[in-house]
Amino acid sequence: MTLACGIDVGGTKIAGGVVDEDGKVLEEMRVESPASDAAAIEEAIAGLVSELRSRHDIETVGVGAAGYVDKARAVVLFAPNVAWRNEDLKGELEQRVGLPVVIENDANAAAWGEFRYGAAHDAQDLLLVTVGTGVGGGLVLDGEVYRGANGVGAEIGHMRVVPNGILCGCGKHGCFEQYASGSALVREARALALSGAMIAEGMLARAGGELNRITGPLITEAAQAGDAGALQQLAELGRWLGEGIASLTEILDPEVVVIGGGVSEADDLLLEPTRTAFAAQLVGRGFRPIPEIRKARLGNHAGLIGAADLSRR
Amino acid sequence: MTLACGIDVGGTKIAGGVVDEDGKVLEEMRVESPASDAAAIEEAIAGLVSELRSRHDIETVGVGAAGYVDKARAVVLFAPNVAWRNEDLKGELEQRVGLPVVIENDANAAAWGEFRYGAAHDAQDLLLVTVGTGVGGGLVLDGEVYRGANGVGAEIGHMRVVPNGILCGCGKHGCFEQYASGSALVREARALALSGAMIAEGMLARAGGELNRITGPLITEAAQAGDAGALQQLAELGRWLGEGIASLTEILDPEVVVIGGGVSEADDLLLEPTRTAFAAQLVGRGFRPIPEIRKARLGNHAGLIGAADLSRR
Amino acid sequence: MTLACGIDVGGTKIAGGVVDEDGKVLEEMRVESPASDAAAIEEAIAGLVSELRSRHDIETVGVGAAGYVDKARAVVLFAPNVAWRNEDLKGELEQRVGLPVVIENDANAAAWGEFRYGAAHDAQDLLLVTVGTGVGGGLVLDGEVYRGANGVGAEIGHMRVVPNGILCGCGKHGCFEQYASGSALVREARALALSGAMIAEGMLARAGGELNRITGPLITEAAQAGDAGALQQLAELGRWLGEGIASLTEILDPEVVVIGGGVSEADDLLLEPTRTAFAAQLVGRGFRPIPEIRKARLGNHAGLIGAADLSRR
Amino acid sequence: MTLACGIDVGGTKIAGGVVDEDGKVLEEMRVESPASDAAAIEEAIAGLVSELRSRHDIETVGVGAAGYVDKARAVVLFAPNVAWRNEDLKGELEQRVGLPVVIENDANAAAWGEFRYGAAHDAQDLLLVTVGTGVGGGLVLDGEVYRGANGVGAEIGHMRVVPNGILCGCGKHGCFEQYASGSALVREARALALSGAMIAEGMLARAGGELNRITGPLITEAAQAGDAGALQQLAELGRWLGEGIASLTEILDPEVVVIGGGVSEADDLLLEPTRTAFAAQLVGRGFRPIPEIRKARLGNHAGLIGAADLSRR
Repeated sequence: MTLACGIDVGGTKIAGGVVDEDGKVLEEMRVESPASDAAAIEEAIAGLVSELRSRHDIETVGVGAAGYVDKARAVVLFAPNVAWRNEDLKGELEQRVGLPVVIENDANAAAWGEFRYGAAHDAQDLLLVTVGTGVGGGLVLDGEVYRGANGVGAEIGHMRVVPNGILCGCGKHGCFEQYASGSALVREARALALSGAMIAEGMLARAGGELNRITGPLITEAAQAGDAGALQQLAELGRWLGEGIASLTEILDPEVVVIGGGVSEADDLLLEPTRTAFAAQLVGRGFRPIPEIRKARLGNHAGLIGAADLSRR
Repeated sequence: MTLACGIDVGGTKIAGGVVDEDGKVLEEMRVESPASDAAAIEEAIAGLVSELRSRHDIETVGVGAAGYVDKARAVVLFAPNVAWRNEDLKGELEQRVGLPVVIENDANAAAWGEFRYGAAHDAQDLLLVTVGTGVGGGLVLDGEVYRGANGVGAEIGHMRVVPNGILCGCGKHGCFEQYASGSALVREARALALSGAMIAEGMLARAGGELNRITGPLITEAAQAGDAGALQQLAELGRWLGEGIASLTEILDPEVVVIGGGVSEADDLLLEPTRTAFAAQLVGRGFRPIPEIRKARLGNHAGLIGAADLSRR
Repeated sequence: MTLACGIDVGGTKIAGGVVDEDGKVLEEMRVESPASDAAAIEEAIAGLVSELRSRHDIETVGVGAAGYVDKARAVVLFAPNVAWRNEDLKGELEQRVGLPVVIENDANAAAWGEFRYGAAHDAQDLLLVTVGTGVGGGLVLDGEVYRGANGVGAEIGHMRVVPNGILCGCGKHGCFEQYASGSALVREARALALSGAMIAEGMLARAGGELNRITGPLITEAAQAGDAGALQQLAELGRWLGEGIASLTEILDPEVVVIGGGVSEADDLLLEPTRTAFAAQLVGRGFRPIPEIRKARLGNHAGLIGAADLSRR
Repeated sequence: MTLACGIDVGGTKIAGGVVDEDGKVLEEMRVESPASDAAAIEEAIAGLVSELRSRHDIETVGVGAAGYVDKARAVVLFAPNVAWRNEDLKGELEQRVGLPVVIENDANAAAWGEFRYGAAHDAQDLLLVTVGTGVGGGLVLDGEVYRGANGVGAEIGHMRVVPNGILCGCGKHGCFEQYASGSALVREARALALSGAMIAEGMLARAGGELNRITGPLITEAAQAGDAGALQQLAELGRWLGEGIASLTEILDPEVVVIGGGVSEADDLLLEPTRTAFAAQLVGRGFRPIPEIRKARLGNHAGLIGAADLSRR
């Protein structure tokens, strides 16, 4: 059985794992990410691979990274958190580790993971929506990762959903991720609490009265305990999410939509409002198959598993 | 050289043409469309094919029709203008004409026409945006028509661009086609004229003072003659179009965007504002290839040519 | 006790009534409105006054009419339903009836009626919001009708609440009355039913399956009977209404807000969602008095009663 | 000739001035504001009055302060920058200085200043719009400051202009001041520069390449020098401003609109786009008098002069 190493380069950590052909993670390690120093990160990746290889018969390496990756799955055109600009990451890493390497956008890698071994293992087409700090997207179409003409597709977080809306870090106004991300959830909950609204009192009490301690996990916990304010916030997030996914479905017509990212832990407290808003916004109901909206299954291993598996292909 | 018959089923006319392997239309005919009577339309299509076949050695038939077509390119799930509901159009027509038939969504067929023989003949990926009564979309990805999981993708006209926006015929609010179609152009120009705005006086004068005679072609002519109001209206349409295409590009990352449909006759008076707004709204400028926005080349033959060619594959 | 005659000039009817100093209507008559013929309408008004005067000792006449009335309460600058343009209506009518006449905008007259004898009889300041075909506004500030510098204030229905929103008959997009009027209620309910949404089935059934028979009163009745779809539609209307009133309250700081017009018959099914949305949108809660939102009391007599009473001052 | 002392309590400074009956400032002093300590600020105000009084025969004191002031012009219900909560500021100050004191909202005071001695000295009604850190509003109606039922009217900066729009410090989304203030101007210019847009290069160069050094005055200077990016930013600000003033005019029907605040220094570079957008958005053009939009004349003395004059009445 062929083993592959999957690497997931995050903003603060780099995770590496040995993945078998059944998508099982045999061993996993994490190291701190040396911030924005490109060479140091490449060194750290090589170190991870080297150590894992000392104990496993790894044949290929797949790397998932946030940013634009070219269509040849080799060059990082631009990364938001690392100083990679037109970096031949494949070349650099192959030289360091002496194994075949493929580079993939992290959300694409995660989509592939869910497609092969997770929530969409029974589907041919998949839209993965990751709801975390931002909103990421990964697409599998007709059994293949969709990369777009230039390798920069599926950036669904920057579809504009509100003209003149909330300013996004990207410089545009009204991007989807300003309404449907975990950051949006926290921002809105804090704004509600700041406004003195009674319905936010439960969340504020859980946060010891400190606005800054209202976080995504706290909101999810409060909602699970039945807190009305937290439930309302998740429902509002779900509404934006569902309405955005409806637009994406008009365009992409996916077979299955999988919701991942940290906030998906809220499960049906998020997914039910998402499904309701989605169904209400979809054109031609009754005359078309409606994609199912499912929760991701591989958690934060999806990227690593997907990247590893892609390196075998 | 293999000849194919392409059929374009419109709301008021059915066009049929004999298309050779170079995309050349050897003969074309048009008949009135018997409105919403499904059987009569099928009869009319068979009649067209039969007559064209009496003079040309046609081997296959391709039909482009508005609506949802299943992925097998056989069944029309739903058509907006014809009473087809889960209609096995391929089966019906093959029985009548005794030739292999494929069915395709009309915008997809047009996209294929432009991809093979028109504005995108040099590209591998294409997003076609048709600006007419509504906004239609057709996608060619990696050299293949993109049909989505269920054959109902690329309905870009129903991406929501304004929450609580203008009510669309589909029942949703704020659909892209309510802002970026020829109908939107006419609606806005008439509203401007109705408001008594001085800048609309030129258009109103051309329309003999009658609001209802302000049409898309009239606006285009006025703009070509330098009328400030008409230029402003086309620029506003172009702004919505460019901003919507930016969202679509974040998602789809096409190599080339082709603008077709009646309003594309306005050429750079429409396309320049489109390009400007597009560039201003695209994330990551400077770190990504920017798709070119081109005018369609095949005019209203695109669907017919594309459908014919698809039937050969 | 001084008696005054109040006249309410509507789009299809003209109502006249004899009003005493307690705001009591001693006799009321209605005639068909001769559409847009200005002279005929003036004749009809004079006829009404003449007949009522034959039985009552009327000393003054107050006329409420839709449109812009100048600050001197004499000249109709513009009326939407009647061909009055800079019409000295006061002069015309005084000549015909031989009594002192004052002209007032109809919503202002109704506000005055509610202020003197209705829902705000205990207040010094009042914002009247009439929710009917459109959204009208009347203001009483510090015990006086507020007319603005030119007599054309309080046109709250044309405050813009959604940029690029629904096109209004006035030529602008996104006016308040496109979201918070009875017409909006009906438009949205029909759109919902047309979309085939299950939640609209109850309303559609009451309408005998005919979209056009879904009306404001039908929706109110359905809601009173507990129909989920109708309740949802009233709640959505109330949300827009409350959010708009919040903006108006930031600007005007009224003591009391009174909701009138046909849709106010839905009572708390409309007013409770209105109050909730209002409270959630008001800045500085906890540090400012919050205006009470009340239902109008005088029904469709408010304008007539108010106009009569204003003519005595 | 009666002399009055006007005090303007700002976020960082307290200004005091001796104002004669012609609105002339005979002497002015400024002290640092002791931040949020209420008693220290009252002490500082008393100190200013005492010193000015040692040289001038002051008979009354008027204080303009940001926040909610009750209708009796005595109690500060809430101040955003100072720890005044239901503070009887009039009582406190009268005790300290032994002169009659009136308290007024700062924008109301400024409106009164412009009404009596400034840009609207010839008018009976006035809407003052101050474009600074936020957007403030002051109203003079029929020759009197309009305070609303509770003294908290004219908070035009919190009229909602974009549903789901930019988050405001007040906790609401889409407030007018998030689009039409000097802060909005700076935020947008920086976002444009950050996006790498060519048109922002001029502003960025003037700021020595540092985003944070792009300020309101820098943008105004650049625009005055003909910089295309700065002109565009002021035009965009003017568009929002004019569209918002159109909504306010539907409601308030002012005779004159005066634009004050720091950004009004840009003069016609701001006011011309404002007027154009205003005129395009006003209902009933041709049938109503259109308020004139003028630049404020008293600069940052308006509040002080107005407060002083109000204390004499």
